[in-house]
Amino acid sequence: MIEKKYNVAIAGATGLVGRTMIKVLEERNFPICNLTLLASERSDGEIIKFKGEDFVVKQIAADSFEDVDIALFSAGKDVSIKYAPEAVKSGCIVIDNGSYWRMNPNVPLVVPEVNPEALEWHKGIIANPNCSTIQLVVPLKPINDLYNLKRVIVSTYQSITGAGQRGVDQLISEVTGFDPAERVTSHQIAYNLVFHKITDASGFSEEEIKMINETRKILNLPELKIAVTCVRLPILGGHGESVNIETEKQFEINEVREMLAGMEGMIVIDEPFEEKYPTPLLSKDTNEVYIGRLRRDDTVECGIYLWIVADNVRKGAATNAVQIAEKLIEKNLLSFSFFEF
Amino acid sequence: MIEKKYNVAIAGATGLVGRTMIKVLEERNFPICNLTLLASERSDGEIIKFKGEDFVVKQIAADSFEDVDIALFSAGKDVSIKYAPEAVKSGCIVIDNGSYWRMNPNVPLVVPEVNPEALEWHKGIIANPNCSTIQLVVPLKPINDLYNLKRVIVSTYQSITGAGQRGVDQLISEVTGFDPAERVTSHQIAYNLVFHKITDASGFSEEEIKMINETRKILNLPELKIAVTCVRLPILGGHGESVNIETEKQFEINEVREMLAGMEGMIVIDEPFEEKYPTPLLSKDTNEVYIGRLRRDDTVECGIYLWIVADNVRKGAATNAVQIAEKLIEKNLLSFSFFEF
Repeated sequence: MIEKKYNVAIAGATGLVGRTMIKVLEERNFPICNLTLLASERSDGEIIKFKGEDFVVKQIAADSFEDVDIALFSAGKDVSIKYAPEAVKSGCIVIDNGSYWRMNPNVPLVVPEVNPEALEWHKGIIANPNCSTIQLVVPLKPINDLYNLKRVIVSTYQSITGAGQRGVDQLISEVTGFDPAERVTSHQIAYNLVFHKITDASGFSEEEIKMINETRKILNLPELKIAVTCVRLPILGGHGESVNIETEKQFEINEVREMLAGMEGMIVIDEPFEEKYPTPLLSKDTNEVYIGRLRRDDTVECGIYLWIVADNVRKGAATNAVQIAEKLIEKNLLSFSFFEF
Repeated sequence: MIEKKYNVAIAGATGLVGRTMIKVLEERNFPICNLTLLASERSDGEIIKFKGEDFVVKQIAADSFEDVDIALFSAGKDVSIKYAPEAVKSGCIVIDNGSYWRMNPNVPLVVPEVNPEALEWHKGIIANPNCSTIQLVVPLKPINDLYNLKRVIVSTYQSITGAGQRGVDQLISEVTGFDPAERVTSHQIAYNLVFHKITDASGFSEEEIKMINETRKILNLPELKIAVTCVRLPILGGHGESVNIETEKQFEINEVREMLAGMEGMIVIDEPFEEKYPTPLLSKDTNEVYIGRLRRDDTVECGIYLWIVADNVRKGAATNAVQIAEKLIEKNLLSFSFFEF
């Protein structure tokens, strides 16, 4: 039997996430027939290697998706708004890494280990959740299945890579003593910390609102009590999350540890006496979600402390998008009837 | 009337906190008659300036405190254990920045804005709390007074300066590409994060246990439900704390903001739309506790989000110790009857 292969496009191929998508497709030996690399006019003609071959980046256009089966988007909000519906019209499935489509009721928001069943009702666009949401819901799902979540409190420790190459450039400029050419925040990032953009009257940042809404949608718990504070740090390689979970049902903390260690996509590193715990640098360039510092929180009847780390560019973005594509193939969900977005 | 002046000693005068104590004494024009600078044998003979004058650092000994009224200690655990009782025997009050005496029932643990009344029963040794505890209890106290604390959840963002000069040296070595001569942790600190030493079977770090116990002692709430996760970061200038507070009584969030802004030692910076919020670098070299990102946490009936920042070497250590000395003078509490520690 010959394995079926697919025509795949990457929109935003020259960005931090786009380049990582290409790497992940290669590493996982994704069954690709034709690979189309798309970007803005600025990157037109750029060469990117895939499996040793040179691919020329083309400027994205309405007809870019005509013979494409699956398109992975990570090219900014405007591209997602304009070209995702165009691609769908051509019969191409879009897996979009941006935030624009995530809360749309006609768009499944998917982490393959958590809610693969949501793929079954897709209408052409599937949204990849926010990085900090993905690594949170991976352990929350089995904890909810077994013990029922009552309340979740999260404080994040997010890598500046979440602000893209411009954020990393500002940090590196500051560390090396140069004035940054461009700034993602008026504050110094090096040796400091900053918050994400805050525009909501309630005082919550956009990142915090995303995490609250997306976690509820993915876990299908629209009333979940979840309190979030997001902080951006001069760290690289991954995001950390300090989480306090309250459950309805009783548990033994060792039982929780063993249960999480047995789950797909999760690695428990929890030998703190030997200084073994997950760190952002440890998660760098890996595709898993790391769990550590599991402790009983006895300020409530059923409380758990959890420390979660994942590479925000990989599992938090590129890897999760590729895993969605793999799951679509596995579940034979590539065909869909036309829906007007 | 002539202002009374005091003989003051600094034990650990050459360390990061000791040097800052000397600076703070000078800045606040503390009424000093004789200043004695003490340190280990290694620093014997070193010269430190105070108000433009040279002071020679002497090696600490049992008789170092004979004519001293107030000694500020920040010279490590062994010195606190051995010399604090010796100083007390000489009639000298010890304000100790180490952790050894903090939970001793005969030692008040004091933050002057929070529990100055505890100074009234001192027996010669007064403990300066842990840096992360001090900045936490400053806002918790008035919130408890008005609304009654029910549960507090804290995740810290702690500066590597908390690990002393050796921690800073490891970070700077890593950033500049050199192999650190000495390491405070086996993990890389630069662009990463680490936890404090974990030796307790429950999985809590020493820092987390300190924060829980000390907060309860200072607030005189031995049963306070407080859950803590402490994280050490490659940041300088101060510690951050992301706090979720649950209270018994109702409040308006603006009423909490105004109340905190009116308190001694606290500065509220909370204009997030203009990117105005407290950061570690903003707190550097200042003596106040900064509050920001006040939000209602509606996952409980009466919930508050609080972001707290302070310079951990100043308000978290040196400044608080000097403020204790000032309060002792103000309250005329320098004399005490002999107690055998």
